[in-house]
Amino acid sequence: MAEATGIGVDELGLLTDLYQLTMAQSYFHHRHNGTATFSLFIRSYPPDFTYFVAAGLATVLEYLEAVHFPPSALAYLRQTGRFTEDFLAYLANWRFRGDVVAMPEGTVFFVNEPILEVTAPIIDAQLVESFVINAVHLQTLVATKAARCVQAARGRALIDFALRRTHGTDAAMKVARASYLAGFEGTSNVLAGRYYGIPISGTMAHSYIMSFADELEAFRAFAATYPDQTVLLIDTYDTLVGARHAVQVGQELARAGHKLRGVRLDSGDIAALSKQVRAMLDAAGLNEVRIVASGGLDEYAIDAILRAGGCVDVFGVGTRMGVSAGAPYYDIAYKLVKYDGRPVAKLSADKATLPEDKQVWRCTRDGHYVEDILTLRDEAPPAPAAEPLLQEVMRDGRRLGTLPSLHEARDRHLEAMRRLPEPYRRLSGGATYPVRLSAELRAVQQEVESELLQHYTG
Amino acid sequence: MAEATGIGVDELGLLTDLYQLTMAQSYFHHRHNGTATFSLFIRSYPPDFTYFVAAGLATVLEYLEAVHFPPSALAYLRQTGRFTEDFLAYLANWRFRGDVVAMPEGTVFFVNEPILEVTAPIIDAQLVESFVINAVHLQTLVATKAARCVQAARGRALIDFALRRTHGTDAAMKVARASYLAGFEGTSNVLAGRYYGIPISGTMAHSYIMSFADELEAFRAFAATYPDQTVLLIDTYDTLVGARHAVQVGQELARAGHKLRGVRLDSGDIAALSKQVRAMLDAAGLNEVRIVASGGLDEYAIDAILRAGGCVDVFGVGTRMGVSAGAPYYDIAYKLVKYDGRPVAKLSADKATLPEDKQVWRCTRDGHYVEDILTLRDEAPPAPAAEPLLQEVMRDGRRLGTLPSLHEARDRHLEAMRRLPEPYRRLSGGATYPVRLSAELRAVQQEVESELLQHYTG
Repeated sequence: MAEATGIGVDELGLLTDLYQLTMAQSYFHHRHNGTATFSLFIRSYPPDFTYFVAAGLATVLEYLEAVHFPPSALAYLRQTGRFTEDFLAYLANWRFRGDVVAMPEGTVFFVNEPILEVTAPIIDAQLVESFVINAVHLQTLVATKAARCVQAARGRALIDFALRRTHGTDAAMKVARASYLAGFEGTSNVLAGRYYGIPISGTMAHSYIMSFADELEAFRAFAATYPDQTVLLIDTYDTLVGARHAVQVGQELARAGHKLRGVRLDSGDIAALSKQVRAMLDAAGLNEVRIVASGGLDEYAIDAILRAGGCVDVFGVGTRMGVSAGAPYYDIAYKLVKYDGRPVAKLSADKATLPEDKQVWRCTRDGHYVEDILTLRDEAPPAPAAEPLLQEVMRDGRRLGTLPSLHEARDRHLEAMRRLPEPYRRLSGGATYPVRLSAELRAVQQEVESELLQHYTG
Repeated sequence: MAEATGIGVDELGLLTDLYQLTMAQSYFHHRHNGTATFSLFIRSYPPDFTYFVAAGLATVLEYLEAVHFPPSALAYLRQTGRFTEDFLAYLANWRFRGDVVAMPEGTVFFVNEPILEVTAPIIDAQLVESFVINAVHLQTLVATKAARCVQAARGRALIDFALRRTHGTDAAMKVARASYLAGFEGTSNVLAGRYYGIPISGTMAHSYIMSFADELEAFRAFAATYPDQTVLLIDTYDTLVGARHAVQVGQELARAGHKLRGVRLDSGDIAALSKQVRAMLDAAGLNEVRIVASGGLDEYAIDAILRAGGCVDVFGVGTRMGVSAGAPYYDIAYKLVKYDGRPVAKLSADKATLPEDKQVWRCTRDGHYVEDILTLRDEAPPAPAAEPLLQEVMRDGRRLGTLPSLHEARDRHLEAMRRLPEPYRRLSGGATYPVRLSAELRAVQQEVESELLQHYTG
């Protein structure tokens, strides 16, 4: 559990915003603990984005089954002076008892669509809010950024190099996981390799080369240790000099019956340099030596390199994917949509909430996605062969069945991207995927809104 | 330890990039394990930035004392097929045995200045790279963003509300810590409150209000639970209607001998609304009720609100501070600067490295910072009363003395910001703080560079 969440299991209860606990205490003392539904959704696309990739559900379910308040947590809460003994006694026995529906990890989804809905006593649904948002937000953010990189790479392999600059260690793990889910082939993060069963990958650093008196000597030393697994970093001093040294070592390895696996470019004009290096390698008969590129890459840089005819076989993508640079957060919200049988909403021009338990239906034509329809949860399918995306994954605090493995979720995601028509997959200038509301849902929304407008007009 | 790093202590060894382990194995088999110095520094300012705030050292030292390879880690490495039994046996007994000098947490520093230098056998210095960068990067990133918010707030209180949208749970903890270090007054993150001894703070959510049939009923219910600690969120339906309801509840509390503590605005034109709400509260005799603002705030929004005369007493700052929006990563590097007595550097126009063990000296006039001078580590003070910023914090893998507490580091930081002249503290359009190299350091740099240029000219 420590690896899954970054926090020990006994700490999960306190990993919440204080107001969740003070509101819970107020609900408790007022015996105001009716059934609530909260809906998790993203309100808007960052610039250039036209879809999202659902991720984080595995973490959420693990958390919901584990979160509790052990004596150490209660002792701290008592010491703050804000909580009654009655409420602390209630917390001591509290476990999450709600139902959860959610999109499977890897699902492609769109603005305003619920990714997940929790139906539970309002205390339960409220206490878990902060963690649930955190987990889904990070992994969806990174899976989406990584999916854009995969689109840009047009079939070339991508490796996660983000560990050193992710926002902390939990992010380092989740970035490796989410980028693999989105179609990356591996990660440099060894712990993520072990924990998630992701292929691990690595080359060499500038420091290795600089610790030797001379680049060629460093290359030979590394190749001596890894005669069939060496990828030489060639830009420490001068990329073309480095390439000549790599050719030399590649030929020495070949003469000894081994194979240089690759060279890595980490700076400069990657498109131009990769073409020169490819030509040098090919001229020396080293046609199978692959070219790895890294250094400040993201979907735009990858696209530019390939448009310029760059000869890159593998992209090492680090920081900008791992922090989702350009879109380091989403306007994601977990909002009350129903309480004690009554549909509810906020009144706000720019921050509308869709009331009620919902379902998301995906309509397909010739195997391609054409439209999504949001309905009330229990409406009949709004179109023939429409597929419901929200699946029941937890009932009364217990998981239903087992989740797909990470590898299965990755396959599901790659299939989903193939079914998403090209206009919605562009890096920029893409089309807006159509999402509409059913007549019933729209009627409920209008009813709730007009009632609120009547009551609260400033 | 789980809370400090987000990862269990037995997992720390594998929380590294694969190439650190493959390079280490190559060093090991070549008996190439001389003493190396690595320097950690930031290469450039993000737009508008003119300083950084050092943070993360406590996490680094805790890690360096704890990191190791237990049998479970070795079993995984063995299974990858990449490592020899000799090297795995070496790793089984490996502990970090290096020396560390570093700037104390809270120090204000500038581009290209070493924040930390590690001197150790190259295997040791290399294996810890990924984690050391990760820890210092995240906490420095957030402390700096938070310090900019503190500057913008001109003495108003700031509270960390970022938990739900930080990049994972480790970031949630470190954001609470780093923002407190930078001068925030508290956090909504309860676990961070307990773990770091930071004051915790919270109000109420829209969902609380929406779960009642009516806003006024919800306000009264919350005030009944917390007659002296209630901060009412007034923008669920209409901010001015909400303010009227808050006035009503404030007066009811006053009649019963209690006090409404505050109201919170979470949307709309905060500057304008806060003035209207202030006037309504004052007209009702509720002069002591504080106004809290939140919702998409960062240093620029805070500055704009106060410039427009907004009546805000407390700013709840969440996502944009917690992900360092606008600058979600730094160009931070951990570079080899010396190996086996030989100063080294990379050859790269845009990515220069300063060779050799170094010291950073801060020169002060009338109590204000005027200039920093980078020297070789053992040079004499380059100016009278210049203060060396890099302090010895670890020798041979053991800490020297105890670090300042978080509260002491916070005091140190606030004092440093007072000593930094105003032109360097502006939100934008600030001056570039002067940092120069000593003649000796410049001579070494030029020597290394010209030697490399001679050897590696493409």
